[in-house]
Amino acid sequence: IRPTFAWWGWRCACTAPSAEYARDVLRAISALELIQACALVHDDVMDASAVRRGEPSTHVAFANIHREQGWLGPPERFGLAAAILLGDLALAWADDLFYGTTLPADRRAAAGEAWSGMRSEMLTGQYLDVLTQARGDESPGAPLRVARWKTAAYTVERPLHMGAALGGADATTITLLRAFGADIGVAFQLRDDLLGMFGTTEQTGKPAGDDLREGKRTLLMAEAVTRANQLGRETEARLLRESLGRQGLGDAHVERIKNVLVDLGAVGAIERRIAALTESAMAALRSADLAEPAAKRLADLAIAATRRNH
Amino acid sequence: IRPTFAWWGWRCACTAPSAEYARDVLRAISALELIQACALVHDDVMDASAVRRGEPSTHVAFANIHREQGWLGPPERFGLAAAILLGDLALAWADDLFYGTTLPADRRAAAGEAWSGMRSEMLTGQYLDVLTQARGDESPGAPLRVARWKTAAYTVERPLHMGAALGGADATTITLLRAFGADIGVAFQLRDDLLGMFGTTEQTGKPAGDDLREGKRTLLMAEAVTRANQLGRETEARLLRESLGRQGLGDAHVERIKNVLVDLGAVGAIERRIAALTESAMAALRSADLAEPAAKRLADLAIAATRRNH
Repeated sequence: IRPTFAWWGWRCACTAPSAEYARDVLRAISALELIQACALVHDDVMDASAVRRGEPSTHVAFANIHREQGWLGPPERFGLAAAILLGDLALAWADDLFYGTTLPADRRAAAGEAWSGMRSEMLTGQYLDVLTQARGDESPGAPLRVARWKTAAYTVERPLHMGAALGGADATTITLLRAFGADIGVAFQLRDDLLGMFGTTEQTGKPAGDDLREGKRTLLMAEAVTRANQLGRETEARLLRESLGRQGLGDAHVERIKNVLVDLGAVGAIERRIAALTESAMAALRSADLAEPAAKRLADLAIAATRRNH
Repeated sequence: IRPTFAWWGWRCACTAPSAEYARDVLRAISALELIQACALVHDDVMDASAVRRGEPSTHVAFANIHREQGWLGPPERFGLAAAILLGDLALAWADDLFYGTTLPADRRAAAGEAWSGMRSEMLTGQYLDVLTQARGDESPGAPLRVARWKTAAYTVERPLHMGAALGGADATTITLLRAFGADIGVAFQLRDDLLGMFGTTEQTGKPAGDDLREGKRTLLMAEAVTRANQLGRETEARLLRESLGRQGLGDAHVERIKNVLVDLGAVGAIERRIAALTESAMAALRSADLAEPAAKRLADLAIAATRRNH
């Protein structure tokens, strides 16, 4: 999704791309995939996740090799080291790819600002997420900040910024595209949170309520807890708190939580927020002077990202 | 040590540096310190080292904060996540620093080759080290390859290459400086291995024989085991093998191993190799056409790195 946003960000500013420049841009924005590779490999280490996309995660795969070969020392320690180093290598190669392409110096410098911001925001956003979970922060501000930096900046805003800068977009266009990206990115995360609770296994590939079992502190949960507290509905507040992070939650319990989330108006509040964010994003997009078909494609992507049911 | 080699690499090629360009070069080569920060923080996670330079290592320091604050979840998991992300951030910021300075495009491109090679060699060299330990590889080739890529390329050869490229050195000069750096870097590692066994606590800050207790597969140990095997000295071969990685080794046992290493001629072989590497390094340095005082400083650094007793 990141290179796609970057690509259409570029096409917003560049109406008649040469094949040669298109190839260089494609190489530069492909670097986003290597950043994501680092994020996933290191994320799985941090979360001790055994599976990624139906396959063993990196640290588990290397631990398995160690075990099969009968090597010395604990397999888990070998898997940990290999995964940390592989993630580091992906991060280093991302920079090699981004900076190794032939691009005009002014375009590269402009895109470099997006590139540099994106990496710092992604990493500090992830730390903010880890810190929020550790602190057990229940305020709605916490998941919103995480969504802003870990998801929106990294997934939509900065890729668009990067692409637009590679296309030589002016400052006004970049500002409007970034505003669009920030709002769509947060809306995307909020839709993801709703699907994490209400989506079916067919839609999400995970059992319904999986976010709840994992103890993910989403805006949806924060909103519900806040409302329960304000309304003095102590039973519901306690139920929500005690369910968060309970691994063995049965389907009936998850159904009960879903009803509570709807009852308290938390689901409606999130839906309204998604709608408002999508509206402000679309307004920013319309007020920018963008080339077609890029503007149309970005609008389509925005709709797909925020109304999707899978 | 890395920015110092880079600095004198630059001065080798640049006889009349402007203060402005010197400042830019200093910023670019300072990025090497951020690579090293990433390497140390992630190394301590991989080795589960609790202490770094007399202070708690990064993952331990963050776990301590978690414990003191009484946050949720296991403190060790929080410390692990924080250290992985902090190392990633240092790696990302290293690139921001290196590419963020104002340098002539051709100089930056030339130095970029060294920068890119150095990061890949350091990370793959570290993986080679982890793999060598896991496989229990006893051949002398294994620790030599690790010394070549993890230490020599990362610590001396590539920093010199980077500095010389920033100074606009020609291809011949760069080749000679790299040859010098590769040899001195390996010699530096071999001296380190000798000190790890024979150095006093006053010299190294660690108890004598610490490398042995940690199970470090050095060329010194590989050389000794190979010689014991060739000479049919089975008692010594077994003693060496069984001592490697034994945490509780007493001083008397370490003394015995030291005698065996000398007896088998392994210490003499390593000393001869250090001398040969230093000689070929100096020959490369002399045959290059380098500006003073840089050439003299590099020779001094080489001597200090390979004859040092601390």
